[in-house]
Amino acid sequence: MALRFADGALWALDQTRLPWAEVELELRSAADVVGAIKRLSIRGAPLIGVAAAYGVALELARDAEALHSACQSLLDARPTAVNLAHAIADIRQAVTAVSTVDRARVALERARDLQAREEAASDQLARNGADLLAGRRRILTHCNTGALAAPGRGTALAVIDELARRGGLELVLVSETRPLLQGARLTAYELGRLGIEHALVVDGAGAGLIAAGEVDAVIVGCDRVAANGDVANKVGTYAHALAASAAGIPFVVAGPTTTIDPATPSGAAIALEQRDGEEVRTVSTEVGPAAIAGAGTRCLNPAFDVTPAALVTALVTERGVISPARGEPVVALLHG
Amino acid sequence: MALRFADGALWALDQTRLPWAEVELELRSAADVVGAIKRLSIRGAPLIGVAAAYGVALELARDAEALHSACQSLLDARPTAVNLAHAIADIRQAVTAVSTVDRARVALERARDLQAREEAASDQLARNGADLLAGRRRILTHCNTGALAAPGRGTALAVIDELARRGGLELVLVSETRPLLQGARLTAYELGRLGIEHALVVDGAGAGLIAAGEVDAVIVGCDRVAANGDVANKVGTYAHALAASAAGIPFVVAGPTTTIDPATPSGAAIALEQRDGEEVRTVSTEVGPAAIAGAGTRCLNPAFDVTPAALVTALVTERGVISPARGEPVVALLHG
Repeated sequence: MALRFADGALWALDQTRLPWAEVELELRSAADVVGAIKRLSIRGAPLIGVAAAYGVALELARDAEALHSACQSLLDARPTAVNLAHAIADIRQAVTAVSTVDRARVALERARDLQAREEAASDQLARNGADLLAGRRRILTHCNTGALAAPGRGTALAVIDELARRGGLELVLVSETRPLLQGARLTAYELGRLGIEHALVVDGAGAGLIAAGEVDAVIVGCDRVAANGDVANKVGTYAHALAASAAGIPFVVAGPTTTIDPATPSGAAIALEQRDGEEVRTVSTEVGPAAIAGAGTRCLNPAFDVTPAALVTALVTERGVISPARGEPVVALLHG
Repeated sequence: MALRFADGALWALDQTRLPWAEVELELRSAADVVGAIKRLSIRGAPLIGVAAAYGVALELARDAEALHSACQSLLDARPTAVNLAHAIADIRQAVTAVSTVDRARVALERARDLQAREEAASDQLARNGADLLAGRRRILTHCNTGALAAPGRGTALAVIDELARRGGLELVLVSETRPLLQGARLTAYELGRLGIEHALVVDGAGAGLIAAGEVDAVIVGCDRVAANGDVANKVGTYAHALAASAAGIPFVVAGPTTTIDPATPSGAAIALEQRDGEEVRTVSTEVGPAAIAGAGTRCLNPAFDVTPAALVTALVTERGVISPARGEPVVALLHG
């Protein structure tokens, strides 16, 4: 389990250590949670939202007056994922209305409630996606979107898991997802535990395999969906979408409706996090981080890219499926 | 210098050791050359052709009757690059016509002649490409196509070098080129030695940076150009081409005319080498190869992909520039 609250602490599986070691981090303050999110020990847009909610609760248990500073530090932990902002806004509103003495308890209730709702959403999303992709036997996915990235079974990987349970899934192609290798380290690990046939490929191989007819559909998660249907997701996603479009196969984005941000008109308005270039110059390996280019090599490290709505065949949520490519409005799902 | 013939041996810079160590391999037989090509100590389509020619000469110096077996083993070293087949056919024809006692000498002359011709072609190609890309300030390139990959200054990287010498080049974005990281290990190293401003990015970041307006042109090398203008090149190339096309910037392929294969009607007819999956599961780092996914993780490792002619804005050769995307026939360059 990626996250659990017990004994007054949030326990998070340290995802930077996988697949080599399964180590739980003990987090007892907002700063602990912020650190874990920034280090990517906790990652995946829906999971970050839940972790942030617990982070507020943990901080209020230490200092009931710390609401504002806790919320602000958590909001700043990662700029691209909108779930984080949603979770913080929700808990801030709930807590502001109650007396100081009740704040920690109310915040913890809201965090647990958010986690439970996200878990139920994951199950429903998985079923909706599997209905959509029925009969597709070879699926390519990017980054990690399973039970490590989200409460419950995850998003895109939950759809894949559901397809596998229903039978007929032949192979999942996992793109490794440089720089941080979430595909190689986490998705391959999760698919192995789920007993689902899979093969790892480098990110650059996705487009060619799609063009060669080796892939029946692409499914990925999302960090933010703009009001016009543009999708921000892990860097490397857009290239897979271009190839899927050129080959005429579905490019499907899966995420809870909390990922839809009606306040963001289009992808151009999404702040795309630029991370430390050392993540590119070094690779996380079994023996620790190791350099792949000479010291002093300058690196650019955009963590996300934007896939325009026109390439998104379907957006799968817990409330249903719509097609941004066909011009269907994603915000309609928020009122469903 | 990537290759030199001296003291009866072919000396090749071991490209698998770069950028960490500059080590020359001493090759004294066709088998030595085959091994170096298969291990990628010698790589880059034009360089492989020249190395193979020297390989035949080396073997004939050991056994003047070994022409057929030497040619066959060298032809089998890497299936995708057409320069190898051209070089072998050329030397085989020259040698078959002479007496046994002269074979080794004639073969060595042909190899040296091929190297000299490729070096001259590289210079002319660089000038042609720089004329075409005049005014483009930020260039993205993939894999390694410089003096390590080809006799002389190389192909795509020779164009970049020529653009830099003429002034106005701002930044070269180098995609790392997983699995074997030729971009990170070799291109960054070469650009550093050339004093050209560059930044390393992961392969998946190319498309997003192109869409974001951060790139003025993409230029890559090629392993084989089919008669219809389809281009086989290092895996990951096709995604960059799709993104360039979507953004309306030039996608330029640079290669000597020896890379054009009139006998291959289209990309569909090109044998794309599938390499060992361990190249994906492990990464070459400063401290040696290191695993990035659990042991037993199945990997697929297509070494190349095909970019359709429609996406190739220009093919730059030593004989001139044509536009496959506009339907200009690449084979016309062979008769120029």
